[in-house]
Amino acid sequence: MSKEYILRVKCPDRYGIVAKVSSTLNKSNLFILDSAHYGDPENKYFFMRAKLIYSENELDINKFSKFFDKECRSFKMNWSIKEAGYKPNTAIFVSKYGHCLQDLIYRVDSGILPMNISCIISNHKVHEKLANWHKIPFYHVPVNKNNKKQAEKETRKILNELNIDFIILARYMQILSDQMCKDFYGQIINIHHSFLPSFKGAKPYHQAYKKGVKILGATAHYVSSDLDEGPIIDQSVERVDHAKTPKDLELIGRDLESITLARAVKYHIERRVFINNSKTVIFS
Amino acid sequence: MSKEYILRVKCPDRYGIVAKVSSTLNKSNLFILDSAHYGDPENKYFFMRAKLIYSENELDINKFSKFFDKECRSFKMNWSIKEAGYKPNTAIFVSKYGHCLQDLIYRVDSGILPMNISCIISNHKVHEKLANWHKIPFYHVPVNKNNKKQAEKETRKILNELNIDFIILARYMQILSDQMCKDFYGQIINIHHSFLPSFKGAKPYHQAYKKGVKILGATAHYVSSDLDEGPIIDQSVERVDHAKTPKDLELIGRDLESITLARAVKYHIERRVFINNSKTVIFS
Amino acid sequence: MSKEYILRVKCPDRYGIVAKVSSTLNKSNLFILDSAHYGDPENKYFFMRAKLIYSENELDINKFSKFFDKECRSFKMNWSIKEAGYKPNTAIFVSKYGHCLQDLIYRVDSGILPMNISCIISNHKVHEKLANWHKIPFYHVPVNKNNKKQAEKETRKILNELNIDFIILARYMQILSDQMCKDFYGQIINIHHSFLPSFKGAKPYHQAYKKGVKILGATAHYVSSDLDEGPIIDQSVERVDHAKTPKDLELIGRDLESITLARAVKYHIERRVFINNSKTVIFS
Amino acid sequence: MSKEYILRVKCPDRYGIVAKVSSTLNKSNLFILDSAHYGDPENKYFFMRAKLIYSENELDINKFSKFFDKECRSFKMNWSIKEAGYKPNTAIFVSKYGHCLQDLIYRVDSGILPMNISCIISNHKVHEKLANWHKIPFYHVPVNKNNKKQAEKETRKILNELNIDFIILARYMQILSDQMCKDFYGQIINIHHSFLPSFKGAKPYHQAYKKGVKILGATAHYVSSDLDEGPIIDQSVERVDHAKTPKDLELIGRDLESITLARAVKYHIERRVFINNSKTVIFS
Repeated sequence: MSKEYILRVKCPDRYGIVAKVSSTLNKSNLFILDSAHYGDPENKYFFMRAKLIYSENELDINKFSKFFDKECRSFKMNWSIKEAGYKPNTAIFVSKYGHCLQDLIYRVDSGILPMNISCIISNHKVHEKLANWHKIPFYHVPVNKNNKKQAEKETRKILNELNIDFIILARYMQILSDQMCKDFYGQIINIHHSFLPSFKGAKPYHQAYKKGVKILGATAHYVSSDLDEGPIIDQSVERVDHAKTPKDLELIGRDLESITLARAVKYHIERRVFINNSKTVIFS
Repeated sequence: MSKEYILRVKCPDRYGIVAKVSSTLNKSNLFILDSAHYGDPENKYFFMRAKLIYSENELDINKFSKFFDKECRSFKMNWSIKEAGYKPNTAIFVSKYGHCLQDLIYRVDSGILPMNISCIISNHKVHEKLANWHKIPFYHVPVNKNNKKQAEKETRKILNELNIDFIILARYMQILSDQMCKDFYGQIINIHHSFLPSFKGAKPYHQAYKKGVKILGATAHYVSSDLDEGPIIDQSVERVDHAKTPKDLELIGRDLESITLARAVKYHIERRVFINNSKTVIFS
Repeated sequence: MSKEYILRVKCPDRYGIVAKVSSTLNKSNLFILDSAHYGDPENKYFFMRAKLIYSENELDINKFSKFFDKECRSFKMNWSIKEAGYKPNTAIFVSKYGHCLQDLIYRVDSGILPMNISCIISNHKVHEKLANWHKIPFYHVPVNKNNKKQAEKETRKILNELNIDFIILARYMQILSDQMCKDFYGQIINIHHSFLPSFKGAKPYHQAYKKGVKILGATAHYVSSDLDEGPIIDQSVERVDHAKTPKDLELIGRDLESITLARAVKYHIERRVFINNSKTVIFS
Repeated sequence: MSKEYILRVKCPDRYGIVAKVSSTLNKSNLFILDSAHYGDPENKYFFMRAKLIYSENELDINKFSKFFDKECRSFKMNWSIKEAGYKPNTAIFVSKYGHCLQDLIYRVDSGILPMNISCIISNHKVHEKLANWHKIPFYHVPVNKNNKKQAEKETRKILNELNIDFIILARYMQILSDQMCKDFYGQIINIHHSFLPSFKGAKPYHQAYKKGVKILGATAHYVSSDLDEGPIIDQSVERVDHAKTPKDLELIGRDLESITLARAVKYHIERRVFINNSKTVIFS
């Protein structure tokens, strides 16, 4: 049985990268099934993702890594390789709104999102019963003005113990600390319920209603310490008209949020997303 | 031959408006072919548009107006009636980019937009030849720091003489004076090349590129004295990815601009748009 | 407390219908909050839906009905009135695929779809546990070549006892009998997993894959005795490319199916849909 | 000044193709700027498109071709290389509807579509004046029941003399002969005014109206001898409702047709499209 792997490469752009990578892979009996790359003409950075098949039994990742490092040293690559079938462990953070959570659970159950929901962490108990029914560990971590540091400490402990690969903020209404944002940069996906950069901050549907926009949006992005400013992964939109109340907009927006978040999560776990300064490169 | 009319009504909302309007029309031998109305639950304002058919020869508008005013006096209506087939006179303002202008001309020629292009006014001569070929009067009104007042005076004179009903800013890169915006409020449609309220002001495609948005937009709106803040008439969007350069975004954006502007103009000339404070009500 | 009602009217088109309806309502102290109508220019049929508010206590529907019938007799109307807040009873039919079922349950739970799921009827037991968790009565009615008549009899008995208003086929892979389609015409909504009229019948995603379409679709429609030919209520689409396998198309299609079905059901329970021969009129 | 080239490869899929191509290019001092490939898992065929930069003066295409052929012989490749900036010569065939023609001319004029419109061929004289204004050679080739062979002969002569690379049927209402379809397979792009495979043949907007679809479409495809059955290049859609007449659908459809055709033509002239039996592979 041959195995598949995902290779990711990021380095300063120059001639010959693809050729060098291809020949190095070939020498290791790894063959490219599918690959995509992009050179940012502005900052001269190169990004590559390749799906590989190993022609023999099991790849010795350590041995391969040493060889690849040696062969490609001059390119100063930031690279990684992982089994294609690897299912990352995720922690879903949620407050009271449960539509994104429900949607994610459904997609994991039905095989659309290949990941393990290792736990649900919430500042409310609303979704405990749902978590129990799906046999997902549920942690109630209340957050208020006075216990922020303690709550974060508790949260980090859970993430550590469960060996979490990345975090999904599925309408989690708390702002993470700067340090948390930095430590997990590129590993926290948030869904913002507007078409960013429009309507940052609180109550975007009310802002959209007040402005009278004719198209509603949702944005999934990596969390940075600037609120609602991290690199955008995906956006979706839906046409609306004057007759829609803020409540209507909210209901329409829920579908946008669920779908946009699910798509961003899928890109992330398939290792298709690269952070490119304040933006993303996505090989879809 | 019976004739068709468009009736527009705007007034404080209360019970019985539709019934009163319907019966008044009936008494005047005007029958509703198509109608739509909307009561804004927030500011308690009512909006109505109806397409009417007159069962006899020609409606005496003056006589009807007096009767309608008398019957509906207590409702404090702001209303108007006009022949459905009336083709408004428009002045198209344009700078160097000609895609919206070309698109509008094509739609007028092929009967999609029932209006007269009475003139093209431009601060450049680029589109004079095109205007000539289509036999549309072309006015070259250069604008610079020192002649703004004079240029506006000249422009107003043209609009006056040609009996202009409304103005289209088809990528016109000059800011109109506050007074001009006020005097023609609700009669100037602008196309802004972004998904407002994102990326106001100059170079929106560069802003969108820098922000790394995954969806590009265009917005047609009435011009107010707040730059890019007037009531939104229509918006369109198109999915983009990381590989798009600012130039690519601009090219993709051109289609969005042409289509969005054309749609907004169509709504306007079919008298479907009502300004509702900072928003619009559109019976589409 | 004043109550709201939905009035629906369908009749041969002619002048004066709106005026007559409006004045009749007015005389009954019913005021139009919102209304829409449409005259089909081809078959000369008129359709109207109005949301009404009753200015006094409780409307005596019987008394009003007699009065309305008398006043409007000459128009030969097919009409009905119902409380706006009425929640219809629905039976959801499902086979093995559960995404539409799950989505409907979620939308009912969260108040997006104001209806009662009176029961789930399935030819499989897969979704029994889910039904139990949500405390929805579950009926396992197996269907095979030999028991079709018996199964239908059993099904009809359930529908009768539970006083079902309409049926949702949420990926129910059995064909209903002609008689069933006729008896419940306009009361059964099906989701077909293609952009009808393309790819009727079985395995539409495989058909779409084979044809190499660049856009995938889903269609919600009323069931008629012609398979996949009943009046279309709503359709949705999503762009796809050559790299998508039939499995990918199926996964993408699931979102389209859930959303399209939910939207069609919402239109139906808000009484916005009229059947107009082989088509629908929808006041959205 | 270094030059850019587009390489296209099509061959039976097997391990090592990318590595072989990359190293062969490298040896020829051609470096990959951008590349994409796809292996069809069903028919085991491989497709690749790469944008290359030559690090020296001018590439000797003949010499390179011999080298590439020799190096890659065992892969049985169907391949080609061309300067990236090459502008193909196109002949636009048109009947009476001019919106696609106008749109194509505008896009060529404004630099969006890098091609030469070598001629316009029409069975009517409607667009002669437009062609003259844009200084595009116009050929009036009337077609009727009796002169089909003669008309085709005349047409082929024009195409030959003008060294045409590909043909655009921009709403050309004549059916080409089987022989013509075969001889120019993959070089004729047609715009069909429906969402194929729905509504093949004549009057698709009337068919769509009759069926009551809620979404309208347009399809650009390569012409094959099976009418409206050739490989699909691109499709677009737009939401419509019951109130749209066949005339409305036609007007809405025009925008879809223009945009879809322009997009398909762009893919084609950028050499992004591969025919894969009855489907296309497009590296967008």
